[in-house]
Amino acid sequence: MADEPLIVFTPAGKRGRFPLGTPVLQAARALGVDIDSVCGGRGICGRCQVNLAEGEFAKHGIVSRADHLSAFSEVERTYSKQKTLAHGRRLSCSTRILGDVVIDVPADSQVHRQVVRKAVEAVAIELDAAVRLHYVEVAEPDMHSPASDLLRLLEALEREWQLRSLGCDLHVVQSLQASLRQGGWKVTVAVHDESTIVAVWPGFRDKAFGMAVDVGSTTIAAHLCDLASGEVVASVGRMNPQIRFGEDLMSRVSYIMMNPGGEGDLIAAVRGAINELAAEAAQAAGIEPGDILEATFVGNPVMHHLLLGINPIELGGAPFALATDQATLLRASELGLALHPGARAFVLPCIAGHVGADAAGVVLAERPDLGDALTVLVDVGTNAEIVLGNRHRLLACSSPTGPAFEGAQISCGQRAAPGAIERVRIDPATLEPRIKVIGCELWSDDPGFAAATVKTGVTGLCGSGIIEALAELFLAGVIRRDGIINGGFAERSHRIRPDGPTFAYTLHEGAVTIRITQNDVRAIQLAKAALYAGIRLLMDRMGVETVDRIRLAGAFGSHIDVKYATVLGMLPDCDLAQVSSAGNAAGTGARIALLDRRARTTIAALVRRVEKVETAVEPKFQAHFVEAMAIPHQTAPYPHLSRVVTLPTPEPGGEGRGRTGRRSQRQRAAEPA
Amino acid sequence: MADEPLIVFTPAGKRGRFPLGTPVLQAARALGVDIDSVCGGRGICGRCQVNLAEGEFAKHGIVSRADHLSAFSEVERTYSKQKTLAHGRRLSCSTRILGDVVIDVPADSQVHRQVVRKAVEAVAIELDAAVRLHYVEVAEPDMHSPASDLLRLLEALEREWQLRSLGCDLHVVQSLQASLRQGGWKVTVAVHDESTIVAVWPGFRDKAFGMAVDVGSTTIAAHLCDLASGEVVASVGRMNPQIRFGEDLMSRVSYIMMNPGGEGDLIAAVRGAINELAAEAAQAAGIEPGDILEATFVGNPVMHHLLLGINPIELGGAPFALATDQATLLRASELGLALHPGARAFVLPCIAGHVGADAAGVVLAERPDLGDALTVLVDVGTNAEIVLGNRHRLLACSSPTGPAFEGAQISCGQRAAPGAIERVRIDPATLEPRIKVIGCELWSDDPGFAAATVKTGVTGLCGSGIIEALAELFLAGVIRRDGIINGGFAERSHRIRPDGPTFAYTLHEGAVTIRITQNDVRAIQLAKAALYAGIRLLMDRMGVETVDRIRLAGAFGSHIDVKYATVLGMLPDCDLAQVSSAGNAAGTGARIALLDRRARTTIAALVRRVEKVETAVEPKFQAHFVEAMAIPHQTAPYPHLSRVVTLPTPEPGGEGRGRTGRRSQRQRAAEPA
Repeated sequence: MADEPLIVFTPAGKRGRFPLGTPVLQAARALGVDIDSVCGGRGICGRCQVNLAEGEFAKHGIVSRADHLSAFSEVERTYSKQKTLAHGRRLSCSTRILGDVVIDVPADSQVHRQVVRKAVEAVAIELDAAVRLHYVEVAEPDMHSPASDLLRLLEALEREWQLRSLGCDLHVVQSLQASLRQGGWKVTVAVHDESTIVAVWPGFRDKAFGMAVDVGSTTIAAHLCDLASGEVVASVGRMNPQIRFGEDLMSRVSYIMMNPGGEGDLIAAVRGAINELAAEAAQAAGIEPGDILEATFVGNPVMHHLLLGINPIELGGAPFALATDQATLLRASELGLALHPGARAFVLPCIAGHVGADAAGVVLAERPDLGDALTVLVDVGTNAEIVLGNRHRLLACSSPTGPAFEGAQISCGQRAAPGAIERVRIDPATLEPRIKVIGCELWSDDPGFAAATVKTGVTGLCGSGIIEALAELFLAGVIRRDGIINGGFAERSHRIRPDGPTFAYTLHEGAVTIRITQNDVRAIQLAKAALYAGIRLLMDRMGVETVDRIRLAGAFGSHIDVKYATVLGMLPDCDLAQVSSAGNAAGTGARIALLDRRARTTIAALVRRVEKVETAVEPKFQAHFVEAMAIPHQTAPYPHLSRVVTLPTPEPGGEGRGRTGRRSQRQRAAEPA
Repeated sequence: MADEPLIVFTPAGKRGRFPLGTPVLQAARALGVDIDSVCGGRGICGRCQVNLAEGEFAKHGIVSRADHLSAFSEVERTYSKQKTLAHGRRLSCSTRILGDVVIDVPADSQVHRQVVRKAVEAVAIELDAAVRLHYVEVAEPDMHSPASDLLRLLEALEREWQLRSLGCDLHVVQSLQASLRQGGWKVTVAVHDESTIVAVWPGFRDKAFGMAVDVGSTTIAAHLCDLASGEVVASVGRMNPQIRFGEDLMSRVSYIMMNPGGEGDLIAAVRGAINELAAEAAQAAGIEPGDILEATFVGNPVMHHLLLGINPIELGGAPFALATDQATLLRASELGLALHPGARAFVLPCIAGHVGADAAGVVLAERPDLGDALTVLVDVGTNAEIVLGNRHRLLACSSPTGPAFEGAQISCGQRAAPGAIERVRIDPATLEPRIKVIGCELWSDDPGFAAATVKTGVTGLCGSGIIEALAELFLAGVIRRDGIINGGFAERSHRIRPDGPTFAYTLHEGAVTIRITQNDVRAIQLAKAALYAGIRLLMDRMGVETVDRIRLAGAFGSHIDVKYATVLGMLPDCDLAQVSSAGNAAGTGARIALLDRRARTTIAALVRRVEKVETAVEPKFQAHFVEAMAIPHQTAPYPHLSRVVTLPTPEPGGEGRGRTGRRSQRQRAAEPA
């Protein structure tokens, strides 16, 4: 009818004519415009706020005016007294259409909106949480037409929210009658994935929470999120208490092998820690653990299996068979988690026996499958989990780097903790070092460094410190391409001293003497050769000689200087501007799976698509490994890197001890710094 | 191709041509002929046995001969040494087609077959259990193509059994790797409803069990069934231990009202009893409770709610709102049942606040919706649950009969147990009684009755005994149409004696004196008037004056003599040949739901279709109730009954004490016995 006003919604661009007096929310619903609501148009929740766009809209042939909407209502006045209703904002449920209008739906009023991620992270998270809250008024029981309380609740959900064929958890049925009566037949219902009622509370409620958990072998970290806004309301972490059964994964698996039934101890430990984190995060956010309605999990295969209560011993030996590589949705209570009784747990899928749900999380955070850029994703733990690919193809493998990158197996190695050396510079002329330690912003040659580090001391080398020390020693010529510490330099610096049949470089002398030994170099050589060989194996399989981007996930990736990593030949040559940290990408993947239920289907499908490569049975892996023992590599070219640093020239026919070192040194001295 | 032999399957009547050498089972599968198999054609399970039909089949234009099948194979010889292979039977998986043949598939080789029910019961049960076993050989893990053990199991189930998109219980994933390795990659899988893996065992297994449970307020009965054959392998029962919280339902609900949280005691009691029954039944059948993979349940609304862990107090007062009236499928462990960890529980739906899942079971056993005959189903407990209808329409109500029919509220009433009088005959001339007691086949005037009842004694009157005593006293004129025990008869028999201001009839004198008092008559009058009024109300609603069939369910229905029940006016007039016991129809309904998964959809749909009538808000119920206080009824005609017994003639204007009694007596004496 021509005398029905026209309403246009922006930014959706949807338009239609409605009878005079139609509420704006109702018109939006009819047009399929995404406007949030928990209370179902009762003016309680304030989720459905909109703005009037005033003016003449030639494109639509209408003039949009304030008096084309009903006056500010009593409901809006009441709402704005109790909660925030920004200037000009209207509650679309209480605002009626009286003439042609253009209505703008702000992002925060949309159900499906983007969550802003930190700059370091790649893509915005689409918000579409599996759990949604719905406020309903349920018909009271009537002896004239007997229907159960559940049936009347389901009828209300269908009538008010178009939710059909819902299932209902038993615990909800058990408490339903009390909730309905306590709420005066008004309740808020939590519906999971538009399919199951998982919670009912008396009266109105508009907060639902979820927890994204990254179950690392060393630390477990959890982000508590508001499922409506996507906001992180608390972040907590703690050591994985399984450490008392073994520092690294394989020693924990050995513990189980030696102690039949011992998996129960590890399972209880990890689940207990998650419960403690949930309680801690809830307290920090001023809620109860029972307010948490969903949790998502990433972790390496062993952590993944233990979380699910699966004995991981099969992962301890060939053929490294996973019990399951499926995405797992279950009740949190099945994992012994003390969240809301209806809470669900979504555990991301593992990719292969050594490529876990943490790698799946990285894939979900980075989505290499969305672009053309050939991307390497690396998550370094005890193993390096590696994914290579783009929109056309995805490959994954794991490479046995061992724990050297985490500071283990290094004579003065330690975890990244205050007092650990994280940055190293070595003067190529004097061979004197400058260092930085975690917990202090000063370099060791800055005034006040000694005083500033009194409390922490200088206690050891963490992963990034070892990488930098080795790379600088290599660039200074002290470490040769084959990894030998060149004893010839002992003539030039007291820091290079015999250490049994080999030599060591003294980086720091204090309460603790911190040295780089030949064994330390060997350990890093083995680790970096494994990492390089894994990436290279995937490149072979892909049939490429170069990659476009390298993203380093995890704590190691966050702290390492990509230049030094490349100098050592950990990574293939790549434009250094395209080598970057992905932050805690695994944890971000867990958060994406928490906030966007569609991402769960996505990652399950992606994991199936990934071609799994098992390094242990690939003969070429060994060949790559041997060649990658040299620094940066025996044969691979590093053209990009060479533009940034001057690499010592390789000498055909091998390098004689001392002589080569000196020559390298001479060459370097002659070149611009 | 014309040179491919023709194979015809009977009784399915399906036919097709297959290449020479095709296994018979494979041909059957291709034609969609229903032949069972657990082992997938490996000659282990013996479920796929068939018979060759020899001879000339003009209809099909073929000659079916023994040499048109491959010779008795090594597999068959091995099988027949270990298990039974009846003469002439072949294993269709190991028998190949070499020429035209007619193959008969015996009933016991079909997946979907009928379970023979006892003669008293109405329809055969179609066998189609929700849980099916599948033997599979799973590919071993291979580092060259890493896939989890679960994925390879799923692939095997799809390859060998065409089962797709299966889910899998967590406990199965947790034990899967051990089972696969223990079974040498051969396992038997239990799949629920073609959708979820609920159990995995190493190696071959062909027994799966289920339990059908009738949760009565007085007794709980369970039938343990072989899910493959439908056979009942053990039947057990015990008192409902909730009796310690109250004899009848309402006193148990009162207990909860008086003791907040007390529902936990009743819930634990009923679940504990079910666990004990499961253990007892399993022991009787030589299996473990952990071998039980499914359980189905019927019960009145209060029992239904308590089983599900729902506080039933809302059922204790108007408006009698059920928490749920949906069919409920969940894990048996959610009900605290110690069956197989993957066992499922199916709880039949309640129909209305006083018409429970037991009535739904009766409907499922009787299926009044399948025929044109207008059928009344009555299940008498503390309330009578009544269903009226046929294929066109179904109505249900509950009527507050109280426990008089069960012997409660009767001066000498007792449960149906040895020593209880169950049959009564009273000589209309002498007013001397003959009785029979439970536990003795003799009548009291048979020689040896006294000796035969020494052990049990004669201890009281059970439900059927009271009905018969009252009906016989009415037919003898001692009890008037208005229910008054006629004191005038005291002149004729010492058995009629004053009892305060009223009279009583002494039925038996012994260690216990058993009398029928005026209050007993009143209690039965109230109960029978309620039952009649409930049925009549449904007939009104249906718009009918007569019904075609009456089926009495439960213990009361099994023991009662329908003639006497009709004489008292408990039931509307009906051809007595069409009034019969339905046996334990509620329990049968549970068994049907256990053995035939399609029945679950059926009963859920039927319950939704049933029109619920609440007697408490129907003014006509009161009117019917008052009129039905008379014996058999104040106004309703009993033409069918009158052909079988001679009813005392009603006297317009009321009956004078004594006079009427005598005249009735005279009339009866003048008529043929």
